[in-house]
Amino acid sequence: MALRVQKYGGTSVADIERINNVADRVQKAYDADDKIVVVLSAMSGVTDSLISLARQASKTPDKRELDVLLATGEQTTAALLAMILKSRGYKAKSFLGFQAGIHTDNSSGKARILDIDCKNIQLALKDGYIAVVAGFQGTDDDGDITTLGRGGSDTSAVAIASSLKADVCEIFTDVDGVYTTDPRICSNARKINKISYEEMLEMAILGAKVLQIRSVEFAKKFNVPLHVRSSFNEEEGTMVVNESSDMESVIVSGITCDMNEARITLKRVPDQPGVSAKIFTPLAQAEISVDMIIQNTRSGGETDLTFTVTKDDFERAKEISYKVAKQIGATEILTAEEIAKVSVIGLGMKSHSGVAATMFQALASENINIRLISTSEIRISCVILAKYAELAVRTLHTAFGLDQEQ
Amino acid sequence: MALRVQKYGGTSVADIERINNVADRVQKAYDADDKIVVVLSAMSGVTDSLISLARQASKTPDKRELDVLLATGEQTTAALLAMILKSRGYKAKSFLGFQAGIHTDNSSGKARILDIDCKNIQLALKDGYIAVVAGFQGTDDDGDITTLGRGGSDTSAVAIASSLKADVCEIFTDVDGVYTTDPRICSNARKINKISYEEMLEMAILGAKVLQIRSVEFAKKFNVPLHVRSSFNEEEGTMVVNESSDMESVIVSGITCDMNEARITLKRVPDQPGVSAKIFTPLAQAEISVDMIIQNTRSGGETDLTFTVTKDDFERAKEISYKVAKQIGATEILTAEEIAKVSVIGLGMKSHSGVAATMFQALASENINIRLISTSEIRISCVILAKYAELAVRTLHTAFGLDQEQ
Repeated sequence: MALRVQKYGGTSVADIERINNVADRVQKAYDADDKIVVVLSAMSGVTDSLISLARQASKTPDKRELDVLLATGEQTTAALLAMILKSRGYKAKSFLGFQAGIHTDNSSGKARILDIDCKNIQLALKDGYIAVVAGFQGTDDDGDITTLGRGGSDTSAVAIASSLKADVCEIFTDVDGVYTTDPRICSNARKINKISYEEMLEMAILGAKVLQIRSVEFAKKFNVPLHVRSSFNEEEGTMVVNESSDMESVIVSGITCDMNEARITLKRVPDQPGVSAKIFTPLAQAEISVDMIIQNTRSGGETDLTFTVTKDDFERAKEISYKVAKQIGATEILTAEEIAKVSVIGLGMKSHSGVAATMFQALASENINIRLISTSEIRISCVILAKYAELAVRTLHTAFGLDQEQ
Repeated sequence: MALRVQKYGGTSVADIERINNVADRVQKAYDADDKIVVVLSAMSGVTDSLISLARQASKTPDKRELDVLLATGEQTTAALLAMILKSRGYKAKSFLGFQAGIHTDNSSGKARILDIDCKNIQLALKDGYIAVVAGFQGTDDDGDITTLGRGGSDTSAVAIASSLKADVCEIFTDVDGVYTTDPRICSNARKINKISYEEMLEMAILGAKVLQIRSVEFAKKFNVPLHVRSSFNEEEGTMVVNESSDMESVIVSGITCDMNEARITLKRVPDQPGVSAKIFTPLAQAEISVDMIIQNTRSGGETDLTFTVTKDDFERAKEISYKVAKQIGATEILTAEEIAKVSVIGLGMKSHSGVAATMFQALASENINIRLISTSEIRISCVILAKYAELAVRTLHTAFGLDQEQ
């Protein structure tokens, strides 16, 4: 007998028919003598409708009350699935955040789970119930309802799986698993069978479509095996697990492409201690998160400093940069919005050399100029002009031997 | 400084514009230095939509889960009103059933409030907050969500008012108050300024449109002054209060008409001890509630026994009656669905004689035949043919001097 936590996303519970399909699958697992905890998202579109309702009520809806409102979405699907299972003769019971013992901090709208008191769920499982948990929600110290942010149901599921020491946490979604790259860009993209938490985190850009990144961090921290799979077929999806020795034989696991960044370069910054702090402190204070930071040496005690931010933060970052440039005496500011960051990711880089060279050669072979480079232990990223993004992804996918076998 | 509990019904919170109107009214009361607790229903139509969604999920939705689903309706309006008040710069906070300390028994769908632990609300009021409470819901001993049945938000409001020892519980609705009779039947119907709990209970049929009867029982028990008034204007409505000496000067307060009953007569029932029990025990076991019971004496050790049930229960009651009739040897069963029960209600009956005579004369003057009669201390009811219902109501309304002054 295994203990399985199954999480179903919004498209998997989009209407009564689909919730019935979810019930089929849950029923099958239960009949196979597994203990089942189901974690549900809101029906697809519902969270957005609720946010738009809130915006009609107030231009800047109070965060505490927005969470109370949003929590109704998952409450609805949990009640409906439990009803369906019961009408089929199964023992089932819904649990809201506060009933499931999901205790969070008080950051409305982006709360973090502090701990889980699973005793209600454990009792129900012991009594043979299928536990149906409303994802995305918890309560804080004051008993206020909180929500965990976009995709928070993934984190609910992983946290519950960790707390219950479940054998697996299955993330059911509308795609078959995690792919080597975005199949819409590269028709040769392949489903990955097994990937490490670390790679999955670096592949945030691919992963974000199927898994909330925070849930992967959580799974890594507590060593919860994740199985990302489709709720519309029976195929095996992608296992996200701890790094294992066999993984390093694959040098590169995936290629990502992020079109959502913009670049700011401060030219001729005086090369003095404390100058970087003068630039990045006001950005941090404005809650602008900076991705890449690259500093080139120039002659004459000056340097060029380049960084990237998300397009959402670009205008504000630019304003702040102009102010700072005046203060520190930088001569010029260059900006670029039409950029793409392509990355190759793989645990194998730790033990194999030459990955960077292969990447640069591949891009060069298509005459794609590299503007910026940054690296981590298992990732190399190059910023290029946005118009080359798709070509770069396909080229790299082939160069690293990731293309689907024909 | 007064402590006011204000309850707004579904039509008063039907959309964001109307919730804004509610906010206007709450704000005004708060600015007048009152402490305010607002209890809200779901937007009109929402509860019905949720029930229909549940029926799509299951023909007979599990009651526990139905309550979890239905509770989202009031959760939504409470969050929205709190948002609006906060965006206007007021301190406001929503409370769900479990946060408001509304503790009920475990009868899903028709739970009764056992007690209220108002400490969270009291703390909020002390800190200058407007407390916005989701009506209709509570939690039972197991921490399961329960709902209080149709119109349950009235009961929530009265219970909270009682627990907080509020100065008044204002029930805002889409009518101006309680009328002497249904204005759609009788254009001369008048708004009643002041009525006793007892009369209000007898006027259930009129009252049900504006007040859940259980809430009146609750108000009577704990002596909570109710003010039933319109949320669309500033007029005073109807005060529902303890009986006071000045009330008895009005002999009849209102006329009601109930078209929702049907009649069953068992002819020639053996007039023996225990026969009534044989008839009414199986009806009670089938959870059919019987309204009027009239037994006429016949000669020859036989009697006719007539009773009325709601039309919903009519078919089942008829079936049971036929079975019982065989067992006890009743010779014949007569039934009638096209009946109406008209009642005159008034505390004054306690001290004034002749009310029955006036009623019978008034009906006779219009050639309306009375089929059944039953009475309570402050009510006289006559069953007549349904086609005379409106005429009877208008005739009685005039006969007892209730017509509006022209």
